[in-house]
Amino acid sequence: MPRYVDHDQRRREVTAAARSLVVERGRAALTVRNVADAVGCSTKVVSHYFTDMAELLHATYTAAAVRAGARLDAVAAADPGDVAGLLEALLPLDAERRADWAIWFAFWTEALTDERLRAVQRHRARTTTGRIADALRAAASSGRLPVASDVDADAHRLSALVQGIAAQATFDPRRWTPARQRATIGAELALIGHRAAPRSLRRA
Amino acid sequence: MPRYVDHDQRRREVTAAARSLVVERGRAALTVRNVADAVGCSTKVVSHYFTDMAELLHATYTAAAVRAGARLDAVAAADPGDVAGLLEALLPLDAERRADWAIWFAFWTEALTDERLRAVQRHRARTTTGRIADALRAAASSGRLPVASDVDADAHRLSALVQGIAAQATFDPRRWTPARQRATIGAELALIGHRAAPRSLRRA
Repeated sequence: MPRYVDHDQRRREVTAAARSLVVERGRAALTVRNVADAVGCSTKVVSHYFTDMAELLHATYTAAAVRAGARLDAVAAADPGDVAGLLEALLPLDAERRADWAIWFAFWTEALTDERLRAVQRHRARTTTGRIADALRAAASSGRLPVASDVDADAHRLSALVQGIAAQATFDPRRWTPARQRATIGAELALIGHRAAPRSLRRA
Repeated sequence: MPRYVDHDQRRREVTAAARSLVVERGRAALTVRNVADAVGCSTKVVSHYFTDMAELLHATYTAAAVRAGARLDAVAAADPGDVAGLLEALLPLDAERRADWAIWFAFWTEALTDERLRAVQRHRARTTTGRIADALRAAASSGRLPVASDVDADAHRLSALVQGIAAQATFDPRRWTPARQRATIGAELALIGHRAAPRSLRRA
């Protein structure tokens, strides 16, 4: 039987190697040579899957976004009005989420001067804000949030707050412990009159 | 009379050229060659002032931080309790402040894997949070904020919120207009019971 090469699997391996390089050694370490060494293949194989490093960084970014999306799906499926749970799913509270944020911050530098990457970042931020708005509406309809609140403004503010907390925690994890990150979100939700559902109070 | 070379002036020129390169063409455009071309000097002159690009990026970052510090000083000198004014001085509401944030975001990628740069970023965030706390205390002592509020928690939350708004506005300026940025800060201050002083309501 001929040896079967699973192209999707190989593509995922290359993307995972790129992720590790960026997270552990920085954006500058993301070269065709380093990725090939990490996967244990030739540089030709890497180039077969990704025409350049911008495309590979893009794939790495997308993989992190897909992971984040799956976390949000899980929270929303369990309780569509679990705003605190949704926001916590976005925060860098564990190794996986910290790595995802490191990828996004690395990507931002390039997005500053690349309109295609900028559009990707913009789309993701808008989608996240929309999901927060959905959760706020569900929380309001189940009586956990005042119906009079301005959902659109609240969603934009919470979306920015999560991004800011992630940035602070990434560069100052000692001060921005998981407990402080959660407390900051909790204080904001308390301010907008959110009465947390029991499962939002869990300390995972 | 011999031609006099002002070293501080030349150093500032090199730093300003680095800033323009990063803001207009991205981090990758920051090379000794490009900086020398922009200043109109030899690469030797650039190397005389900055031993490597990491040092030049550091100087560029610091220059942006000094500018931001001066903006905060001006607000605090006019009214130590002008929390809204202080936060607005940090937001990317005009070309200068947008460029400063672009510098910081460009710097973040390197800060992820460079402990020295990380320490600079950490120090700056902590200083900003401290200044916000000072303004909150001044606002409370002048009766514009409930005395019972948790100044430390509020300052950390506002500091994260400003950073998040800046990130959103940098990548999605159409959605995060100056009006939305100000409204987001205004809504947060309204939530914590801040009664804005008249000069905080100005629309500069």
